[in-house]
Amino acid sequence: MPETDRVFADRITDVPRSFIREILKVALDPGVISFAGGLPNRSLFPVAALKAATENVLGGQAADVLQYAGSEGYQPLREFIAARYRQTRGLDIPVDNILVTNGSQQGLDLLGKTLLNDGDGVVIEEPGYLGAIQAFSLYRPIFRPVSVSSSGMNVEQLRSAMFAHRPKLIYTVPNFQNPSGVSYPEDNRHEVAEAVAGTGALLIEDDPYGDLRFSGRPGSSFKSLLPEQTVMLGSFSKCIVPGLRLGWIVAPDDLLDKLVTVKQATDLHTSHFTQSIVHRYLADNDLDEHVGIITDTYGRQCQAMQRGIREHFPPDVACTEPEGGMFLWAALPEDLAAVDLFDLAVAEKVVFVPGDPFYVDGRRSNAMRLNFSCADEATIEIGMQRLGGAISKLLAAPQGDRESGRG
Amino acid sequence: MPETDRVFADRITDVPRSFIREILKVALDPGVISFAGGLPNRSLFPVAALKAATENVLGGQAADVLQYAGSEGYQPLREFIAARYRQTRGLDIPVDNILVTNGSQQGLDLLGKTLLNDGDGVVIEEPGYLGAIQAFSLYRPIFRPVSVSSSGMNVEQLRSAMFAHRPKLIYTVPNFQNPSGVSYPEDNRHEVAEAVAGTGALLIEDDPYGDLRFSGRPGSSFKSLLPEQTVMLGSFSKCIVPGLRLGWIVAPDDLLDKLVTVKQATDLHTSHFTQSIVHRYLADNDLDEHVGIITDTYGRQCQAMQRGIREHFPPDVACTEPEGGMFLWAALPEDLAAVDLFDLAVAEKVVFVPGDPFYVDGRRSNAMRLNFSCADEATIEIGMQRLGGAISKLLAAPQGDRESGRG
Repeated sequence: MPETDRVFADRITDVPRSFIREILKVALDPGVISFAGGLPNRSLFPVAALKAATENVLGGQAADVLQYAGSEGYQPLREFIAARYRQTRGLDIPVDNILVTNGSQQGLDLLGKTLLNDGDGVVIEEPGYLGAIQAFSLYRPIFRPVSVSSSGMNVEQLRSAMFAHRPKLIYTVPNFQNPSGVSYPEDNRHEVAEAVAGTGALLIEDDPYGDLRFSGRPGSSFKSLLPEQTVMLGSFSKCIVPGLRLGWIVAPDDLLDKLVTVKQATDLHTSHFTQSIVHRYLADNDLDEHVGIITDTYGRQCQAMQRGIREHFPPDVACTEPEGGMFLWAALPEDLAAVDLFDLAVAEKVVFVPGDPFYVDGRRSNAMRLNFSCADEATIEIGMQRLGGAISKLLAAPQGDRESGRG
Repeated sequence: MPETDRVFADRITDVPRSFIREILKVALDPGVISFAGGLPNRSLFPVAALKAATENVLGGQAADVLQYAGSEGYQPLREFIAARYRQTRGLDIPVDNILVTNGSQQGLDLLGKTLLNDGDGVVIEEPGYLGAIQAFSLYRPIFRPVSVSSSGMNVEQLRSAMFAHRPKLIYTVPNFQNPSGVSYPEDNRHEVAEAVAGTGALLIEDDPYGDLRFSGRPGSSFKSLLPEQTVMLGSFSKCIVPGLRLGWIVAPDDLLDKLVTVKQATDLHTSHFTQSIVHRYLADNDLDEHVGIITDTYGRQCQAMQRGIREHFPPDVACTEPEGGMFLWAALPEDLAAVDLFDLAVAEKVVFVPGDPFYVDGRRSNAMRLNFSCADEATIEIGMQRLGGAISKLLAAPQGDRESGRG
């Protein structure tokens, strides 16, 4: 169909183009080993148990869950979510404070839609989750990046941002963050909560990976440290399957009430069919047992990646040490750009995501995000070997070549 | 959880509170006959065929459709939609111009998000679909209502609105409109297309009910009359089931490209699991045969309602004569308000939706929306009898009482 001089809404000029989509095209070549994706490992999907749950749902009052339904979500699933918070985190969340969403990505969208005016401040982790940057961008906030490292969120930067910009939202992924794999240490969580307490800001605790811990001990939830200012986002994508598109928001009464109105205007409700399948699955299976299978696998694969890095990367490449999740973050020497490494890596038939899109300032990052959930240990070993070779080539290149890379 | 003095985004102050939600609570009383809903008839859901389709999907490459997937939608389903447009409407729609959404409600949201700046003009039918008013409201347009009747859209009003306000969008439901049940006559469609042709506006042709025709002949699609300026919205909610939340947008290349970016930022993608179930259902079943069962039933129920109106309503109540869909619109004499009838009707144990929420100007409407898809013919006869009794009481009430009704 012919193109026109269409005038789009101003808000869509701010959405960053997803470099990752381009990368994933390269990764379609079957000879390429990809650490670029952000997918859970499909070989661990509980297909048989989901099939049984689906048969059960369709054998019962199927018409109920195939009809239009309430915007808040399927009541038994909301009750399961509340019970699980009590059981695994000691958090007492009333069912009425839970709204089911199409994955936690929609949670981000609904929060932006309900809370953000043009120019409102949003503290975002640096590096930070690309999907959050994209979702919030559509509501035209001003991002106030605060750096995140293995020491957690930089509290000095956070305090300055709170003081200077009075942000409305503080977006955090305190467990096995995407893209860096780091978790906020316990004392850092308390400091962050203190810096936010008593301000008008809401802290979003996005926790899609929290269950995927393969070492270390969990830190306190912000919900327990800052109960009235914390909004939690959860997801079944990483611990069951992503394709059913199920996540949730936990929010205070007044905010949840608005979120439900906005959810209704946005897509009426999330499918009660998929919600009842997941509820049935959860009622008939031991989620912790299934999660144990995932964390065993991801833990071994993460170790294989760390081993590969030690053996095949030059010693001046620094890496994070994830205690869970799906990602690890590796930083080249500061004068190098990860995008320059990308083309060399493609030539070696291995890909990753350069750090650039995880920063809102458009910088050339020296870091790369490496996903360890999808490739098995042997493949990771070969991939790390190839990537180490590409890094060596980059380091050996004359400085001029290094800087001629793509913008 | 305690409430705070939370500052929400300005945009949510504009979302009309859904009066319908309150009404549906009254309708939960099992003794009440409800014509208030907007639901397809659940007894006609093809549960067995959907169950077979689901087993088929989960027996195949289940992990594929349970994984994260492309934002555009499940390719075979998009191909089916394109083929059906060719077959049933003679429209040649490239697959690449189709984006799958969570019901057509999300189509409305994504179009608003992609196209509307604060204050942009949106022509809306009067009376018009409440869900569209809600979805667009969040992007703070100025609504330019144009009245719709059994003569179609008022072209004089449309021309004035186009000239005076240069609206960006014109929202239409040309077939069996919600709430009025009217369809645009063929010559009216040509006049509307002429009024819009060559302006910068996009015409949205929302057609959730188009397949549900039980009498008369279909009119031309705006897509054929105004190919470069028409965006089509479609849905499987009314002809299969609503609970899988599947609809689609057909848009020109440049717009579709932006819509995909916005869809990705909004919720990544619609479940490929539910999409593949519906695709399997469509491949293995004759949709037209199933739709025939629905239209037989709805046609008989619509006739029963029209018969009940003739027999039990005072002669000065005027009604539309739908050729399909799920709704009929009945107007009391002009000095009466449908909300005043509502309380009398509840006392008689029958409910409907007063016309008020279908107007953006907050008027007290003399009309009511009556749904005929859910109640069987015998129940419709009793309900019309009750409603006729309530109308007679309203007409017999002293004028002062009539006007003391709720605001």
